[in-house]
Amino acid sequence: MGGVTAPATPDDVAAAARRIEPHVRRTPVLDVEVPTPGGPRRVTLKLELLQVTGSFKVRGAFNRVLSAPEVPPVGVIAASGGNHGLAVAHVASTLGLAAEIFVPEASPAAKVDRLRAVGGRVGVTVGGALYADAQEAATRRAAESGALVVHPYDQVEVIAGQGTMSRELEEQAPDVDTILVAVGGGGLIAGAACWFEGRRRIVAVEPATSCALAAALRAGHPVDVEVSGVAADSLGARRVGDLPFAAAQVGVTACLTVSDDEIVRAQRHLWSDVRLVAEPGGATALAALLSGAYVPEPDERVAVVVCGANTDPASVATPRADG
Amino acid sequence: MGGVTAPATPDDVAAAARRIEPHVRRTPVLDVEVPTPGGPRRVTLKLELLQVTGSFKVRGAFNRVLSAPEVPPVGVIAASGGNHGLAVAHVASTLGLAAEIFVPEASPAAKVDRLRAVGGRVGVTVGGALYADAQEAATRRAAESGALVVHPYDQVEVIAGQGTMSRELEEQAPDVDTILVAVGGGGLIAGAACWFEGRRRIVAVEPATSCALAAALRAGHPVDVEVSGVAADSLGARRVGDLPFAAAQVGVTACLTVSDDEIVRAQRHLWSDVRLVAEPGGATALAALLSGAYVPEPDERVAVVVCGANTDPASVATPRADG
Repeated sequence: MGGVTAPATPDDVAAAARRIEPHVRRTPVLDVEVPTPGGPRRVTLKLELLQVTGSFKVRGAFNRVLSAPEVPPVGVIAASGGNHGLAVAHVASTLGLAAEIFVPEASPAAKVDRLRAVGGRVGVTVGGALYADAQEAATRRAAESGALVVHPYDQVEVIAGQGTMSRELEEQAPDVDTILVAVGGGGLIAGAACWFEGRRRIVAVEPATSCALAAALRAGHPVDVEVSGVAADSLGARRVGDLPFAAAQVGVTACLTVSDDEIVRAQRHLWSDVRLVAEPGGATALAALLSGAYVPEPDERVAVVVCGANTDPASVATPRADG
Repeated sequence: MGGVTAPATPDDVAAAARRIEPHVRRTPVLDVEVPTPGGPRRVTLKLELLQVTGSFKVRGAFNRVLSAPEVPPVGVIAASGGNHGLAVAHVASTLGLAAEIFVPEASPAAKVDRLRAVGGRVGVTVGGALYADAQEAATRRAAESGALVVHPYDQVEVIAGQGTMSRELEEQAPDVDTILVAVGGGGLIAGAACWFEGRRRIVAVEPATSCALAAALRAGHPVDVEVSGVAADSLGARRVGDLPFAAAQVGVTACLTVSDDEIVRAQRHLWSDVRLVAEPGGATALAALLSGAYVPEPDERVAVVVCGANTDPASVATPRADG
């Protein structure tokens, strides 16, 4: 790790917080007791799923756009079949900018429907089978049009924006020792690593079916992985970003995986016990505690980021035993 | 109103808060902007729907049981097809007591299923067509068995327990001028009136199809009303309690009604904009703002209690235009 430095500083995060403050919600925290294999544990949930557009992604997207020296008339461009696309569309709509969002054919209907509903000067282009194809199409288009690219995770401003979630959490729950964060491309956890600078344990949680950070840490650099599974629509990045990878090398304490079944169980638990509707990616960090993939010390104070809610709410109910 | 006094004091509420603190959640608040006929308004939502058992009802139920000099071996008894029954069952299960819950045949499956799932020494008896019939059956049984009756709203200890919601809200949002609260039998709003003692405007919101408080205020005493509509399973008390009525006479500023359509719109708004699943009764207070039934002054700071989530989560999604 010699020479690796975090891509953003706490000052970058504090500046981002000031910049985006009029546009985002200060999402609440809630202390609850959760069942773990070692018995019930009290944990702090950071309810980032109640953020504007239903995920943390607006933090980075607002910071990227608001910190650009200027936005060209053609507006902003992004690729995402889901939360990031929705966030960028919302940012453009709020700021009166044009936006073009490339979505892969694989995007779930619940997300594409919401994207089309944003209206304003937001265009939705279906391009390519998978996320990576849509990202390539968006990159080609941006090279022609000159639109401002808002990357889902691999830009300093995006990471600093996502870091504002951690800054808030520290204000709200200053005694927390450890923070569990789900990882896709790595933007949210990179923000946490950049904000906390080693002052907290930051634990990455990935679906076993899409574990790009674990693969990158093993290889010593970002590598492509196969992605699939229930949380692929939000955590299914084929490769972590270079900047998030640098942040993770500096500031991530551990990297764990959970199974799809464990993710679905965590989703159902959040509904049946806390009345929260989390999407699979939003329940992934909690799954590490419920499953025992992460076992805290007896006196360790743990926070869990519940980071997204963009799913069909019908999907979180436990099927009734009598059918 | 000469001679009418509030049924509980702020000291009763503070004592209740100490008594129930190990067992209930400090539910968070969230500031959001909501659309009203007069333009967007910033309001503070009190997320009491994230309370243990999915509604505020455990506050009063825990306080009633924990403040009883003794609970007989036969345990506790309550009548409720919904949130109150679930709360009393949870209290009994937590404290290792027996409980008998009478539910009317009209109770929604989502609530009765949860009730049966509590387990422990909790018996569920289906008795009578409607809530009032179940309440009569429970009262008869209690007279025979000597079980401790936990009334849904017409007991001082229950009202003091519900008042802890208002006490928390004042700590969390001290600048609020006005609090909108949905009313069924009147326990939650009575707790607010007893805690605030006129220091805040307390606005009652009832479904037009079940407005027992409005009828009581017009008549000068509690009277029976017809109840129906989407929120009847939680707000459909046929008559407000005598103690809540006294509290309302002392401390409720205004009493408004909203239509079933307005309640359903508020429910859908909470999901589409805030990713919260509220039951109809839980969305009723917000409906008064969204519909314009309550129009705050330009500088008035408003809090809205979102008080219950016990519904099928599939019910909150907006039907897709294309079917």
